[in-house]
Formats: sequence, C-alpha cells, structure tokens
Amino acid sequence: MTRPLILVDPAPRTLDAILRPRTRTRLEAVADLVIHEDGPMPDAVVDQHLPRAAIVMGQTALDADRLARAPHLRAVMNVETNFLDNVDYAACFARGIHVLTPGGAFAEVVAETALAIAIDLARGIGAADRAMRAGREAYGLEGNAGAFRFAGSTVGIIGYGDLGRAFHALLAPFRCEVIVHDPWVPDYVLEKAGCRPVALDHLLATARVIAVFAGVTAENTGFLDRTRLGMIRSGSVFVLMSRAAVVDFPALIDLVRAGRFRAGTDVFPEEPVPPDDPVRGLDGMLLSAHRAGALPDALHEIGEQAVADIELILRGLPPMVCRRAQPETVGRMRSKPVAAT
Amino acid sequence: MTRPLILVDPAPRTLDAILRPRTRTRLEAVADLVIHEDGPMPDAVVDQHLPRAAIVMGQTALDADRLARAPHLRAVMNVETNFLDNVDYAACFARGIHVLTPGGAFAEVVAETALAIAIDLARGIGAADRAMRAGREAYGLEGNAGAFRFAGSTVGIIGYGDLGRAFHALLAPFRCEVIVHDPWVPDYVLEKAGCRPVALDHLLATARVIAVFAGVTAENTGFLDRTRLGMIRSGSVFVLMSRAAVVDFPALIDLVRAGRFRAGTDVFPEEPVPPDDPVRGLDGMLLSAHRAGALPDALHEIGEQAVADIELILRGLPPMVCRRAQPETVGRMRSKPVAAT
Amino acid sequence: MTRPLILVDPAPRTLDAILRPRTRTRLEAVADLVIHEDGPMPDAVVDQHLPRAAIVMGQTALDADRLARAPHLRAVMNVETNFLDNVDYAACFARGIHVLTPGGAFAEVVAETALAIAIDLARGIGAADRAMRAGREAYGLEGNAGAFRFAGSTVGIIGYGDLGRAFHALLAPFRCEVIVHDPWVPDYVLEKAGCRPVALDHLLATARVIAVFAGVTAENTGFLDRTRLGMIRSGSVFVLMSRAAVVDFPALIDLVRAGRFRAGTDVFPEEPVPPDDPVRGLDGMLLSAHRAGALPDALHEIGEQAVADIELILRGLPPMVCRRAQPETVGRMRSKPVAAT
Amino acid sequence: MTRPLILVDPAPRTLDAILRPRTRTRLEAVADLVIHEDGPMPDAVVDQHLPRAAIVMGQTALDADRLARAPHLRAVMNVETNFLDNVDYAACFARGIHVLTPGGAFAEVVAETALAIAIDLARGIGAADRAMRAGREAYGLEGNAGAFRFAGSTVGIIGYGDLGRAFHALLAPFRCEVIVHDPWVPDYVLEKAGCRPVALDHLLATARVIAVFAGVTAENTGFLDRTRLGMIRSGSVFVLMSRAAVVDFPALIDLVRAGRFRAGTDVFPEEPVPPDDPVRGLDGMLLSAHRAGALPDALHEIGEQAVADIELILRGLPPMVCRRAQPETVGRMRSKPVAAT
Repeated sequence: MTRPLILVDPAPRTLDAILRPRTRTRLEAVADLVIHEDGPMPDAVVDQHLPRAAIVMGQTALDADRLARAPHLRAVMNVETNFLDNVDYAACFARGIHVLTPGGAFAEVVAETALAIAIDLARGIGAADRAMRAGREAYGLEGNAGAFRFAGSTVGIIGYGDLGRAFHALLAPFRCEVIVHDPWVPDYVLEKAGCRPVALDHLLATARVIAVFAGVTAENTGFLDRTRLGMIRSGSVFVLMSRAAVVDFPALIDLVRAGRFRAGTDVFPEEPVPPDDPVRGLDGMLLSAHRAGALPDALHEIGEQAVADIELILRGLPPMVCRRAQPETVGRMRSKPVAAT
Repeated sequence: MTRPLILVDPAPRTLDAILRPRTRTRLEAVADLVIHEDGPMPDAVVDQHLPRAAIVMGQTALDADRLARAPHLRAVMNVETNFLDNVDYAACFARGIHVLTPGGAFAEVVAETALAIAIDLARGIGAADRAMRAGREAYGLEGNAGAFRFAGSTVGIIGYGDLGRAFHALLAPFRCEVIVHDPWVPDYVLEKAGCRPVALDHLLATARVIAVFAGVTAENTGFLDRTRLGMIRSGSVFVLMSRAAVVDFPALIDLVRAGRFRAGTDVFPEEPVPPDDPVRGLDGMLLSAHRAGALPDALHEIGEQAVADIELILRGLPPMVCRRAQPETVGRMRSKPVAAT
Repeated sequence: MTRPLILVDPAPRTLDAILRPRTRTRLEAVADLVIHEDGPMPDAVVDQHLPRAAIVMGQTALDADRLARAPHLRAVMNVETNFLDNVDYAACFARGIHVLTPGGAFAEVVAETALAIAIDLARGIGAADRAMRAGREAYGLEGNAGAFRFAGSTVGIIGYGDLGRAFHALLAPFRCEVIVHDPWVPDYVLEKAGCRPVALDHLLATARVIAVFAGVTAENTGFLDRTRLGMIRSGSVFVLMSRAAVVDFPALIDLVRAGRFRAGTDVFPEEPVPPDDPVRGLDGMLLSAHRAGALPDALHEIGEQAVADIELILRGLPPMVCRRAQPETVGRMRSKPVAAT
Repeated sequence: MTRPLILVDPAPRTLDAILRPRTRTRLEAVADLVIHEDGPMPDAVVDQHLPRAAIVMGQTALDADRLARAPHLRAVMNVETNFLDNVDYAACFARGIHVLTPGGAFAEVVAETALAIAIDLARGIGAADRAMRAGREAYGLEGNAGAFRFAGSTVGIIGYGDLGRAFHALLAPFRCEVIVHDPWVPDYVLEKAGCRPVALDHLLATARVIAVFAGVTAENTGFLDRTRLGMIRSGSVFVLMSRAAVVDFPALIDLVRAGRFRAGTDVFPEEPVPPDDPVRGLDGMLLSAHRAGALPDALHEIGEQAVADIELILRGLPPMVCRRAQPETVGRMRSKPVAAT
C-alpha cells in the first residue's frame, strides 16, 4: 500500500518557520513529502507529483486543468493564510476537496497586543512614558488628565471572527459591557458568547473602547469613513488591528490630531510608511509596524493547526481546526490576510 | 435619641474627591458630620467633638489621651490609605476600636496598568512606537526581535496583597503559570487561588514576567538587591508597581541598560525624578510617573469602601470591606501607602 | 422579485414546538413558507413546491431525482437533528447544498443533567434520599460511606462533541483535572480547551468520574464492552448520556450490582424499559427515562439555531450555527440522534 | 529557647480526623503539643499547661480566670467550628487573643451538594428515578412535566457567607442572574461579586431557584415563616442547606405537599428524624440526612485551615484563613455550626 503524498510548497514561508521539529516529525509520519522551499514550487515539479498528491500544502496555482489531473487530492492547505485567486474553488467544492487555512493561528498574539494597546490608550501609558523622556511628566492625578479606567468601560468590537473572539476572551476579568458589530455573524452567536449585537453607528457612538478586527471584503472597503469616524464618542480610544483599507486613514489622522479621540494602529495604507508621513509625529496615536501577528510562536501555530487537520483528513475524517474556504465568501475575501506577517 | 457623629478630617484628600454625590448622601443619612477639609482639622475642633464621635474619618492624631476622651469611638477610617505613627494603635485594639483603610481601592486600576505594561514589555509595543517616531521601525517578524508571547508565559508575582490578587485575576484568560512569593501569605491561600508558592530566588530565575507589588516594611527594604536582580532570567520583563524602596534602583538601571532584561516602573527613589536622571533616556525601560493608582475612579472607590464599612459599623456589625490595622503588622507597615496618588 | 420558498416538513416535530413566536415571525419575514405539520409532507406537496424551494426544513426524502428537480435548493435543515439515509448526500455536497442540523440544541440541557447526576453519584445524594424514605438513613459522616468530593476529582469525558464540550464548560469552577477520549478530535483542540487527551483504557482506569457522550457510529457499537467496563476504577462513577448501544448493558448492570462502581444512565437498550427489567431495582444506579434533552427550552433552541442559519443562507452567507453533514462522516452517523426527545 | 506550646483538645473531633499526616507533621514542627483526644481535656491537664500555652486548639472552656493564667496565649482555634458560650470573648478581644474557627472548611462540599440538589429539583431527576423504580416512568417530553432548565434561571441566595459564596462560584458557567439577600453584607461586596442585592420578599417572589445558607442568629430564628414561604413563586425550587431553625418547617412541608414548589433539605428540626415523620413520604422533597458537609475531605480541610493560621500566628503574623470571632457578632452566633457533621 502506498503512502499518501503531500506537495509542500510553503513560499513565502518555509517549513522550519511554521513547523516545530516534533510537528514536522508527525507530518513525515503520515505522508511522503515533496518539498520545495526556495520560492514557489516549479510547475514541472507540481505537474510531476500532482497525480499522486493527496494534499497540497501551500499557495500553489490549481486551475481546473491541474485539478483534473489530481484525482487523489483531498485538501489544499494554504499556509500563507490567504486565499488567492489562483485556485478553481468551485471545482474544489464540487469534488469535496477541502480548501483550508490556519487563519486563526494569529488570533491569540494579535489579541494580546490589541488589549495592551487599548489599555495603554485608555490609561495614557505610552504618552506618559514619552512625556517623562522629554522631561515634562506630571505625577499622580495631574499625570492622568484624559485617562480612564479600562475595567468596566463599554468595549465595541467590529469584526467577530477569530481575532475578535480572541480579544473578547481576554476581556473576561474586566467586567466590560461588550457590544459587537459583524454583519456576517448572527445575533444568536453573539448573544451566546455574552456580547450584545448592535448597529455600527450605535457602536461608534457608544463604546469607550473600539477595536477593529474586520477583514477587507469586496463590499466593506473604507466603511469606517470620515462620517462614521466622526461619530466616535469624544475621549474614546480606537484600535485598528486588521486592515488599513477598512478606514479612511487621512480622516483618522485628522480626528486624532484634533484631539477628538486617541488611536492605535498596527496597519497603514502604505507599508513601509513613508519617512515623512505625518502619522509618525502624531501625539494621540500609538504606532505599530504590522508587528501584532508576526511572532515566531504564531507561525508555529500555523503548523500546529495545519498538521492537526492533515492528520484528520488522512484518517478519513473531516478537518476541525483550520478555517475552510466557503463558496459564499471565498470570492469576497481573496486578498491580503487579516494578520499576516 | 442622638445620631452618631463622624469627624471628617480627610486631608490631604477632600470629600468631593472621594465621595460620589450619592455616596455622600448615604453618609449624611447615617450620621451627623463635622467636616474640615481645608488642611488637617484643627486641634480645637477635634477636641470639641471627639467626646461625641463614633467614627473618625481621616488621619487625625489620636494618642492615648485623646482616645481616653472619645468614649463612643468605634472606628478610625483612614482615607489617605496609610497608617501613620500618630495613633495609639494598642489602645484602639484593646478597646475594640476598628482602625481601617480602604487600601484595596487602588487595586483594580493599578492591576490593569501592570498588565498593559507587562504585555507592552513582552511584545515590545512601546519600543516599536518610539522606533517608528524615529523613522527606524522594522516590519513584521523583523520588528519583533526579542519579543515573546505573553499568553502562556510563566508569571511571577511578588507580593500577594490586594494589588497582587487583582493582577492575578486579570491573567485568567492567558493560561499563564502563575508563581507567587509572599512571606506573609500561607501556601494554603496561594494554592486555593490557583498559584504555586515559590521561594523568591526561584521566582526570579524562572518567571518570564515578574510583577512586584510588595509594600515596604521594616524588614524588606531593598530586598531586590543587585544579587537578586542578577538572578532574573535573560530576556524577561520586570514590572515594579509598589515602592521603589524594595529595589536597588541603580542596579535595576544597570541591568536594563546592559540589556539583561526589560523593565517598567511606576515608582522612583526620588519623585519628581531629577531632570537629568539617566533613567529618562533608558531604552529598555517603560516609565510611569506614579500614575497607576491616581485615577478619579480609584479615589471614588475609597469613598465607596469607607462608607460601606461605616454603615455596617453604625448598625452594630463588623466591617467587611476595608483593610484592618492589625497588631502584628501595623508597626511594620507605617509608611507611605502602597499605591497612593 | 420573488421571495425564497421554504418547505417546512418538521415531522415528527411541529413548528410550534421548535419556534418561539418571535422566531417564527423572523422566519416568515425572510421567506414564503409551505408548511405541512400533520405527519410527513405528502409527496405531491413536495414535488409541487420543490422546483421553487430554496430550503427544505425537515427530514424530507431527497433522492437524486428530486434534487435534480430542485435547482434553487441551497440547504436542507434537519430539525429532527438526525441525518437519515433518505437523502442523496453526495449530490448535495457536489452542488454545495448545505445539509444541516441544529444538533447542539440539546447540549446545554443534557450537560446540566449530566453534572447533577455525576455529583449525585459522587456524593450519594439520591441513594441517601431513598434510605431516608425507607427509614434507614444514617447521619453525618456515617451517611457518607463511599461518597467522595466531586470538586477536584479527575473527570474523564468520552466523546467531545457538542455534549462533551457543554459538560466540560460546567466543570470550570470545580478545579477537576479533565481527561478526554475522542478519536475524531485532534489533541490540538483538546489541549486548547484545557483538557488532556488520553487513550480510552487509560481514561477508564484513571478517572473518578466518567461521562459518556459518544454517539453511535458504524464502528463503535459496544466499544465499552465487559473488558473495558472492568477497567473502571473501583468506587468511581459512570454516567451514560448518549446511546445505550455504545455500552455492553448487561455487563454494566452486573458491575454496578456487584458494587464495583456506581452509574447513572439516561438511555436504555430497549425503551420503554420492560416492566420487569432488573435495572429498575438496582441500588447503585440512577435511572433517567431518556429525559435529559427533552425540555421545551431545548426544542426552542432547535428553532433558534435553524432560523439563525437560514437567515444567513438567504443573505448569501455561509451558515455558522448548525452542525453540517460532512462527506467523511454522514454515512457513519446515520442513526438515532444523540439526544433526541 | 523554649518552643511554643499548643493545647490540643479537639473533642468531639480527633486529630486524625482533621489532620492529614503531612499536616500533622507541620504542626509538630512548629510547637510542642499537649494532646487529649479521649473526650474533653480534663481540667487538671488544662490548668497544668495553660500557663505555657500559646494556642488552645479546641472548644476548651476559657473563663476570665483561666485566661488570666494564660499569659502567653495568642489564639484559640475552635476546630469544632462553633463558638460556644464557654469562652470570655471580651477578655480575649481586649488582649488581642485571636479566637478563630476554620468554618469555611465545609463550604466547598456543601456547595456542590446544593448545586446537585438544585439541578435535581429543577430537572426532576430524583423524582424520575423513583418513578422508574416504581414502574411508572414517562419518557422524553412527557417525563419532563414541571421541569425547567437550570441554566439561565434566576437564582436567589439567602446568606452570603462562606457557603453562599462557594455556591455562587459554582454558578459561573450557567449564565444565571444571581440575586442575594444578606443583611450583614453590604451591597458593595455583593455587586463586586457580580450579584444583585435584593430585599428578602423580592427574592422569594422572583427567584426560580432559592438556596438558603443563612446561619441561625439570635434575631433570625424562623424568619422564613409561613407568610414568607407563601411568597415563593409557584413551580420554583427551594434548597435548605444551613439550619432548620430558620424555616417554619411545618409550613414548608405543607407547601411542598400542596405542590406549590419543590424543596430539598439537608437539615431537620429534629435529628434523627422520627420514624413516622411525614416528611419521609413527601413526593416533592429531596431528603438529605445532614450529610452535605460531613465528608472526610472537609474534615481534613479544617486541619489545613487551622494549621495554616497557627503557622502564621507563631511567626508573629496575623491569621488569614480562618473566620475570626468578632465582638459585634460572636454573641449572636453562639450555637450549632452552620454545617457541622
């Protein structure tokens, strides 16, 4: 009996970046691996091995033609965590080929950064550190002008996917009221999770802490436009963790500069940020250079999730850990990942 | 029947600072108040009213002589949250006069600051913000050199009083192993709380995140000396929230400057910090100008706790909320409060 | 523009049993309903409306032929919570028709019953009540022979689906070590949930409390056979909440009668249980007549889950709440539901 | 230097009943022990050793005279968990002698029993077991007449001491609204704990599940009288865990017999209950022969708590674990313990 074959084509990642040694050992135990790490796998290699492949692990182009020549293919595991437009998803769905991505791998590390940024902004921690370095700090009560207690404040979460959920989990000890806006998640799910579903405008006008985890879709680009950002309650804090494209960034900068609210962001419209970008000097803004998810631990989590599902699939069981591409949404979500590195 | 009398002598605080309007109304409903807010209550006023007083609310001097002239006194409520050496505690204990302080009022706001600082240091958030302002940021994985995931790391808490407990409560969602050193707290209490009691040296050598909440006592000044600080695991983070006097501060600065570990501190040996103090330029240090507890909300908490216990006492019941001065420890703890403003 | 059509064929349930009035209103707001509640929907009615149907809500037979005549069908929502062999699942999967069931609707009510039974058996509550009714009770310590504290004991969960997870959630305050056996769930999922995955034999020999939530599949009938039941630690308690067929029931009765361990069960090989079945007189057994899931509240939960997903599907979004039939497992699970009423 | 001396006079308990071997070792390490276990310590033994005693561990009579002859006495540790009228408490308080009892030792085991009884009554578990033994069970929905889901129901706790708190902690996963009545506990404490303080009558009329943990005091005997019991919402469940004397027991029996609500009780006005007491045949009542606290594990907890505090006291530190006798309440609480064995 032949062992199953996995095409390992992890670019732009490498196997070592995503697999701890003991996880790699598990992978090697269940399948033969054809590995190409030095850039994308050459077509010739793909075409040679596809006929025997049970799983493709990577962002390999898989058009209808190629899929037709992969009769044993059971799953595509995208370890870049980003569904590109180079796969014939419809053909995969029709054949029951799982298209998966361990997108939740970043959730925990992004969530803890979001929490620290949110408390920092509420309590003025980073600003006070800067003041002290500049020799203009104030002590005690005077040093806390504009600060507010994070515990007990109303927190609004925009986007209740893996990231939003992971962030919500960290709020448990703080006795915050948590309100959520996510048009793809039913009220039933939000209420079971202990949140209150609300309309976006209500969230913006009500929450003292706003955290944005919404990915970019075909429909929601720039949905946090100047008008909506203007609805944010004065003195609130706004934390952007997902994608710059969901926000009117110049409007965000204007409002922060005007002192309407404080903000923190892990993402920028252009990365690297231009040297002379005014955002660099903004006082009410906490700046993070797309670092929130980019931790070696999170990359290893990609491997843990991917191998857990690969083991299930090769045992004839459905995957349970990774996010599945879905016919309804894969076309809308094809883009940069929510929290890639 | 005469109503009980309360001497209100809250300096350096004011009633408005510590009592929300509805809480003041509750206080006025249970007793007559003699209030002096413009500095400490003059002796003449104290001496005039003490014979009728049921409660003294403040840091009023109460020597044996005065106590002898206060036959109805049932409690001393120190709203500065600091037991001074101007009360004959032994006489109070012998007569069953409660000496109380709402010292836990600051616990929650200090704890959330400590958590934000700890995650900031683990993940390099503030340092990355500074880098971006200076135009030398790195993106993604490169921007995370030296950073580690806070969730799941071993956290060592030094001092498991109100502050330590409040901090511990915030760790619940992070799946951290929590080790604790506090020579005044029995293992029974720590284990019930889900911590592991350990020796100080073991904690320093083991924890990835160290948070210090220990107050200063007659015995522990400078107990985190150069030798002990040298035991801290390389690459760990050290957060000092209680009192500068428990640490050899120059040694702390040396070790942080040498890159042995990163640190954050809310307290300094001399406050205000001298303009030319080298701590101001230290890269691996997060600086907070004694701000962690000094929030209006926390001051109001003083009033909430004080009035809750005053109501109980005037109903003939034992107080339940404030910290009691205790014969065994009041002599050791007389000093600056753990988290005053 | 025509509204979508839903064939409502809920037998053996009724719409009123599963839909609260406000939930029915929501359903009527998003689609036209063709309802047949008086037994299964007649073929003529099905065949008349199938060409326009977007959703079939029920256990309607849907062979390849019928599916071919339902070009707009997007989902089959089985409100009996039981995938029968009367649907061409392969055809559904190939066309992207979701086959769903709100199987988790019973999880919460079954879990609380399981917890109460487990504590009852650990502490001897029901047996003590019987003793008192018979006039042979013992008081205090003497009344607790064989009893043990539930809190802190090792709990073994067999089957970590909706029921097992819901039961696990209730254990949070009890500081129990939780070990789990479920061959369909990867260690990654169990460890993230705070359990320890173990082999079945190890679980049986180690746990002080064993709770069985495993459904019956083609492969696992009778897997808790006489040999395995014999591995159970003396004095433990064994709670069977899913299906009698996973256990060698005569062996279970023998071991309980012999006093090897105590047991509780919500299911029986034959229901109703024959009048003279010896299980009725068994002292170490807590008997529950398939009642654990059969609560009006749980039936309404079926409706809540079904309508939440129907709303998503009709908005062009993927369902998020109900369990999906999966190509890998639907053939193995076709049978009586885990927790039907 | 002489070691401190402890008079160990644990009747009606024994040292072995309350001390695990390793805990006894700890006790022997910090003090010399004079032990008398065969009934109360004879006066001659007490009088011989009292002059050197640092701690009395037991319910030894200690009048003013004896206390005067015990100049080194620092604490009285009552391991029966019950403050009797045989101690001159005023003299102890004046001298700063701690009078302590590990009364919380029973909290956890009583709480889990209370939870199991409450769910049993809500879901009809015990009654269904009896029905099945009698051959008159009903299956599924029919078997659940009168039953309700415990999760999400309003729970009213009467008495928020150690027992009430421990019970409350177990409710965390059930999303119940928790209302509390305890005239000795300020709203501040209840609200911080996540409960809503309410008046007794409101609690009785509102809660679906009522759990009584209130001890008996001089003032509250029979406070749950016929009128108040009559306020209980129809179909609710009533669980009595503390003392029979707080309830009008005949009224309770009448109301349960009339089917107004279901009840469970661990205590009875007369124990042992007379053979012909009608309570034995009552259908809506779950009967527990004062067993809830009487577990070997709970007795060992007495020892754990006592020794933890003794160690602190002998190190010159204040006790932290046991309940202290307080001047305001010790006179009211002198009676049978809340949950003795």
